[in-house]
Amino acid sequence: MTIDNRLKELGIVLSETPKPLGSYSPCAQSENLLFLSGMLPLKDGKLIKTGKLGESVSIEEAQKCARHIVVNALSVIKSHLGSLDKIKRCIKLNGYVASAPDFTEQPKVLNAASDLLFEIFGEAGRHSRAAVGVNSLPLDSPLEIDFIFEINK
Amino acid sequence: MTIDNRLKELGIVLSETPKPLGSYSPCAQSENLLFLSGMLPLKDGKLIKTGKLGESVSIEEAQKCARHIVVNALSVIKSHLGSLDKIKRCIKLNGYVASAPDFTEQPKVLNAASDLLFEIFGEAGRHSRAAVGVNSLPLDSPLEIDFIFEINK
Amino acid sequence: MTIDNRLKELGIVLSETPKPLGSYSPCAQSENLLFLSGMLPLKDGKLIKTGKLGESVSIEEAQKCARHIVVNALSVIKSHLGSLDKIKRCIKLNGYVASAPDFTEQPKVLNAASDLLFEIFGEAGRHSRAAVGVNSLPLDSPLEIDFIFEINK
Repeated sequence: MTIDNRLKELGIVLSETPKPLGSYSPCAQSENLLFLSGMLPLKDGKLIKTGKLGESVSIEEAQKCARHIVVNALSVIKSHLGSLDKIKRCIKLNGYVASAPDFTEQPKVLNAASDLLFEIFGEAGRHSRAAVGVNSLPLDSPLEIDFIFEINK
Repeated sequence: MTIDNRLKELGIVLSETPKPLGSYSPCAQSENLLFLSGMLPLKDGKLIKTGKLGESVSIEEAQKCARHIVVNALSVIKSHLGSLDKIKRCIKLNGYVASAPDFTEQPKVLNAASDLLFEIFGEAGRHSRAAVGVNSLPLDSPLEIDFIFEINK
Repeated sequence: MTIDNRLKELGIVLSETPKPLGSYSPCAQSENLLFLSGMLPLKDGKLIKTGKLGESVSIEEAQKCARHIVVNALSVIKSHLGSLDKIKRCIKLNGYVASAPDFTEQPKVLNAASDLLFEIFGEAGRHSRAAVGVNSLPLDSPLEIDFIFEINK
């Protein structure tokens, strides 16, 4: 099955590729490694949620942001490669969770991204991951994730 | 000398591979690069220390955490590759230090990890490194480190 | 035109390679990928500015730090490779901005680094990027950036 068909099965519709917030690219490829920029849960140019975990944002709301970011990431990759079937596997996620100083459940937030990658790509969606709390993110986003994907030669 | 023998010389015993705190892998390899997940100072499923630098955790305690994380990382690599002698060198460490807003000695904490890698691997243990302070980490850990290693072809 | 000539045109003078703040290397290369350590705006061993964005450091001052870090990074690369003309392109920047909890303009700070890389290298200077806020950095630096460059084979 193609990844596009798998996305249809899951009811996932790719979005417009979100524009970078500055003078950089959404992704950059070196040989078979594709490095994606830190992505925010943007929809039509606006964040779907602002604020921090442990303050105004619940874990469920942040998990929704995490899934939204994965879909944005796939949109960037499709725009770059032409087809998502060129993805060999997901290698790494770095998840930055805007957190109150006493919020320590960053992994729960990121699991929503990890789970969705596994749902879409199966074993090829399994990746290494770092999840950390930070005190502030661009535009007051609750979450930023960057990705490394391996591309078929 | 094998790395296993060198570890014996240094009195280092590899641990059980710590389980990821979610739906991801402890490491993911692309060609000869091995990306490890952000690792915490877990022992038998529990953190050996919680809290933040500049608050309840001293630099010495955090350095102990840093060494513990390096040993955990080697356990993950041995479990993945079968032998630590397949490591060509350590390429990169990212160290996230849970910090009070006025704590600025993150490099001292990470030096314990860098020094141990050099003790074990010699010149092959020399790596590039980023060390930053963050306001919160998973499980209230004082430290999280992720690693990139180069593997022999 | 060589990169050295381009730097002359822009009035940029490379600095002494800043010394790492510990037992690690300024950069580490695996095949054609060069990973630089997290770099600070050091000049003659001292930070050109300390403090945080949203507190005692303005966006303009932090942008000056960002440009200074790029020049330091090029100094490290020249020292490692012998010539900046061996750079194929810039792949990734991770920018850590020391931020007050309500400062959310990290991308504006990092744009100064991204813009300078584009000025120097043209299209080869375009990169992917992550920009996050953190509550504290080594030596009370307002900014730390690490880089991945692709090197010509």
